[in-house]
Amino acid sequence: PHAPRTISSKAHSAPYPDRTHSCGSLSPDNAGQRVILAGWILPERKMKTIGKSFYHLKDSYGTTQLLVDHAQGDSYNTLLQVPVESTVLIEGVVELRPIDARKLGNTGAVDVLVDRVTLLNAATPDMPFLPSNPHNLPNEELRARYRYLDLRRSALSENIKKRSQVAHIVRNVLHGLDFTEVETPALLRSSPEGAREFLVPARNPASSDPTQGSQRQPVFYALSQSPQQPKQLLICSGGVDRYFQIAKCFRDEDGRKDRQPEFTQIDLEMAFVSWGKNQPPSPSSADETNVWRIGGYQVRQVVEKLVRKIWKEVQGIELPETFRVMTYYEAMTRFGSDKPDTRFGLEILNLSDLLPHVSDVSSASSDVILECIVVRKSGDSAFIKASHTSGGDASTEHITLTDATRKTWLLESKAASHVYPDMNSEDQTIVNKALKLKAGDDIWLSYRPRVPTGGSTALGKARLQIFERAQSRGDYIVTKDPHFLWITEFPLFTRDDADKEHLAHGRWSSSHHPFTAPMWQDIDALYRGEAEKVRGQHYDLVLNGVEIGGGSVRIHDSAMQDLIFTHILKLDDTEKFPFNQLLHALQCGAPPHGGIALGFDRIMAILCNTSSIRDVIAFPKSASGTDLLFKSPASVSRQVLEEYGIQPQQ
Amino acid sequence: PHAPRTISSKAHSAPYPDRTHSCGSLSPDNAGQRVILAGWILPERKMKTIGKSFYHLKDSYGTTQLLVDHAQGDSYNTLLQVPVESTVLIEGVVELRPIDARKLGNTGAVDVLVDRVTLLNAATPDMPFLPSNPHNLPNEELRARYRYLDLRRSALSENIKKRSQVAHIVRNVLHGLDFTEVETPALLRSSPEGAREFLVPARNPASSDPTQGSQRQPVFYALSQSPQQPKQLLICSGGVDRYFQIAKCFRDEDGRKDRQPEFTQIDLEMAFVSWGKNQPPSPSSADETNVWRIGGYQVRQVVEKLVRKIWKEVQGIELPETFRVMTYYEAMTRFGSDKPDTRFGLEILNLSDLLPHVSDVSSASSDVILECIVVRKSGDSAFIKASHTSGGDASTEHITLTDATRKTWLLESKAASHVYPDMNSEDQTIVNKALKLKAGDDIWLSYRPRVPTGGSTALGKARLQIFERAQSRGDYIVTKDPHFLWITEFPLFTRDDADKEHLAHGRWSSSHHPFTAPMWQDIDALYRGEAEKVRGQHYDLVLNGVEIGGGSVRIHDSAMQDLIFTHILKLDDTEKFPFNQLLHALQCGAPPHGGIALGFDRIMAILCNTSSIRDVIAFPKSASGTDLLFKSPASVSRQVLEEYGIQPQQ
Repeated sequence: PHAPRTISSKAHSAPYPDRTHSCGSLSPDNAGQRVILAGWILPERKMKTIGKSFYHLKDSYGTTQLLVDHAQGDSYNTLLQVPVESTVLIEGVVELRPIDARKLGNTGAVDVLVDRVTLLNAATPDMPFLPSNPHNLPNEELRARYRYLDLRRSALSENIKKRSQVAHIVRNVLHGLDFTEVETPALLRSSPEGAREFLVPARNPASSDPTQGSQRQPVFYALSQSPQQPKQLLICSGGVDRYFQIAKCFRDEDGRKDRQPEFTQIDLEMAFVSWGKNQPPSPSSADETNVWRIGGYQVRQVVEKLVRKIWKEVQGIELPETFRVMTYYEAMTRFGSDKPDTRFGLEILNLSDLLPHVSDVSSASSDVILECIVVRKSGDSAFIKASHTSGGDASTEHITLTDATRKTWLLESKAASHVYPDMNSEDQTIVNKALKLKAGDDIWLSYRPRVPTGGSTALGKARLQIFERAQSRGDYIVTKDPHFLWITEFPLFTRDDADKEHLAHGRWSSSHHPFTAPMWQDIDALYRGEAEKVRGQHYDLVLNGVEIGGGSVRIHDSAMQDLIFTHILKLDDTEKFPFNQLLHALQCGAPPHGGIALGFDRIMAILCNTSSIRDVIAFPKSASGTDLLFKSPASVSRQVLEEYGIQPQQ
Repeated sequence: PHAPRTISSKAHSAPYPDRTHSCGSLSPDNAGQRVILAGWILPERKMKTIGKSFYHLKDSYGTTQLLVDHAQGDSYNTLLQVPVESTVLIEGVVELRPIDARKLGNTGAVDVLVDRVTLLNAATPDMPFLPSNPHNLPNEELRARYRYLDLRRSALSENIKKRSQVAHIVRNVLHGLDFTEVETPALLRSSPEGAREFLVPARNPASSDPTQGSQRQPVFYALSQSPQQPKQLLICSGGVDRYFQIAKCFRDEDGRKDRQPEFTQIDLEMAFVSWGKNQPPSPSSADETNVWRIGGYQVRQVVEKLVRKIWKEVQGIELPETFRVMTYYEAMTRFGSDKPDTRFGLEILNLSDLLPHVSDVSSASSDVILECIVVRKSGDSAFIKASHTSGGDASTEHITLTDATRKTWLLESKAASHVYPDMNSEDQTIVNKALKLKAGDDIWLSYRPRVPTGGSTALGKARLQIFERAQSRGDYIVTKDPHFLWITEFPLFTRDDADKEHLAHGRWSSSHHPFTAPMWQDIDALYRGEAEKVRGQHYDLVLNGVEIGGGSVRIHDSAMQDLIFTHILKLDDTEKFPFNQLLHALQCGAPPHGGIALGFDRIMAILCNTSSIRDVIAFPKSASGTDLLFKSPASVSRQVLEEYGIQPQQ
């Protein structure tokens, strides 16, 4: 109806008037007004009795119902011919709906009586699927290929908008706290091992050197796995006191579920972090729970402020002023996990503590403890059926007590006999009494090294399995209150991380990264070389059993950093090379500093109540790293590779 | 003085108290207060007469003067032994300075009388350079190696902070205008040509397929050169109506001055952009200047609002409500540049317009025009000396008029004779009269094709050369008012872009990118295949002769997009392959849309009044793409390369 369409062109490419409103903005206040809307047209509902048809017009702000009189020949005919999901521009007058036809929401009380329709762009009648029909969606792979249609679904686009909202809250809070956002390089240096990092071939400037002849060596950047070194160097510079970045990071981890080759961190670093106003807690506090005994007090404050603000604005939930704190030791002992889900009970009980006389005589038991979970028929009724039907794994024993087995279960247990071969029926009685066991109770039994290592124990896994089964059975409805938790005082070094072993080759590894400062109480042990005794000033932030962030106070002493590289981790010069600038920066008046990185994708998945981070990323890759939309990765011509001095392997 | 330092550790790693203030926050209001500060210690100034010493303590917020009484043995002795640039924690009492010793700024009116000093981290006495001494800085290369020291200089750290401030203004403005910030992938698909893009080798999932044997083909992602396709697909989805992103982009352009392999764009895209409220301007407006005749009206509005807000907040400058608009044709004709610097005159004059009778008879002249710049001895006195001493290049003729040459300069000109071999002295008189020439005036003369192509003409370059010379001579002081300017109505296709020719191989190239919509008035010409006649709905934003952004209304008609790929650009199927998903998205009800990308680094360089974008990037690379701090790019072991199925070229 407006400027004439050019004949040879299929879509409307000539001028057309501006929208006056979005499809989500009309309300009864607009009744009687003439409006222009643009959006996607959804299927017709014909009302033959009144000679009219209803259409929904949808844009990213909402949906408005259109009313077209069949007598309005031009408009109705245009709409009749328009395939669903085409974009149209309509003009008409806003009408109040009859009271009984009003629906909830802004636009639910009005229709637009259309008198003019311009087809802006016809959709093919051959759409791979109709995003407006959420009850008939194809599988995830097909939707990934046509992500531009999947994103038209409100459920997905709401996630993308919420992500933008949260990112802006983060920035507002941090700018308000005097943070400076600094972009650090994505193109960094490849480290000698090259594990988990993506390489980026670069043209070698030296290769144009004729004296090099055919010996030119290809060179590479590596994509930043995290801004760890740049942000530490930035804080060492003193150029900014408080740094943050919502940073894109890259890791080449194939085969990990729900990981993306590129992901986003909320990354912070602060100079002059300390132990806070009540510093440091007295040594006696070591026995107390819920005490922050390490440095990085200011990081904790900032993160709690930030998280509280997000949950308030997005979820309408008021979180506590400070989050609960638990040491790694306590978390492993009570929950069998370094990211415990504290929304439910089923805590782990230490049986060795009940059998001191036994452990005194057996040397085998001194560095091993026996522990159990009791699922009580009466007290844990929501879990008991899930427990009955849970399998556990080879390292746990699962016993359902009967009146008959009550007196012998411990004596007959393989796990208990392994740890305490000399047990007798008196011990059985002591344990039964202490645990207040009854017939019908379920017992999960296992043993483990006394000093906890790694991320979880056998009973920690069994505990989660029972919980998940109880939930999926519908027996247990978990609280909606988010359980935030700080885990602190991790061991600084580990030999138990399979992911790190292929680089460590039997040497110590850093539990998190080699820049984490030891607890100051453990510095002497560090200098004595007793790596296993050193706890780090590391903190993980855990939400409902999911680690959503981790950070630490960093080492600012170059001698200490060098000692760890050289004498604990036993790095050779090639391995140390990528850290040389950091060591030197520490020598040039580096301030004490610390920071944290929060997993933005994972936080968004929790806020959007979805189990997959692909639902909160506009254009994600599949679990195998394949991009089904853009069809990448893809092969490249030999000629292009030659510019970088590389070729396919032969 | 606080918790004892561990002997074996060089830096202070034990608890210490919080700062009460930053070094930039004290004022006379704090007089008499006991404070704790932390920062970098600068050289001593000893006042023997009063038995005291002054030190400056600096942190990223500012500098506070410390006063230490030599009688305060412990504190003074500690400070005496502390190397410059060490980090220290001091305690003391704020004192008002004597009136005659007060300086400007927050902290200039107070000292802190120090009574306690804790050395947090000693700097090496062997610093590569002292950032606190800006008058004695080493060369840029050395400073790049020790960027963590260079960033300690206030000049540099202020730039980094201003960058953060501007990014936050951008986000606040755009969120306020209902934009959604969406992260698009950095890892995209490599296109068949692979020009200018960085490759990222990926593990080939197919390579674990045993049936492939040794024929496994290496595969690659490509780093995003810009979010162009993802953002268009996002808008085509309808999931968001207005997208933005402060986006990291990657281009492998070696040898370009002041370019970085990774750089940052402020990237926008909007659905349903149109011609605005007064759409479209009447055809007669084609002769008027300062008229926006293309679509994308909303993009223009948003960008002007954004830029006005930045200049207001950061520079305190109130920019006009709307920026000047100039067509490409006008810009090339009057200024010889598609990014004209309009802060000064020296406009180009068309001599062919003065000689219609000549051009009527000469067929050679019909597609060539003769033009000149006149630098007037009296009117352009600031430029005349610069003009006298400017060289020009082979394609310009430079004549300084004398009374003698006044009557023959045109007749004797090689350029004029080339275009108008039949000229006579009457023509000379006509031109002299029209130009009001006087002895002492400088004339720059050149000819060019009547239809302008490319980014600049010979006289456009000469004009800039004269301007720059006049500035560096100190003859001309350019206005501080920023001159913002939109350039519109560019030719949609070009054969004159050397950068594109290596892919085009003699075919037409898109002047900007193949997604730009033609002006609707030129669609018929497009469908007739008259590529040279088609102007695009492209707009560049120019500031003081620097292009700071560019964008366009995009094609939303898949048939038109396909026509351009296939019949104008003559892409083969392999070349078209990376665009297939966009073509399909256009078929699925894509809305009309348009957007822009602003060069954030360049805008920041202008706002920070520096000529190098390296001064506004925390960790830049050198012009050759080398990172002197992180020592990248670097070589990688064969073993790592094998995981990606590649090896060094043999």
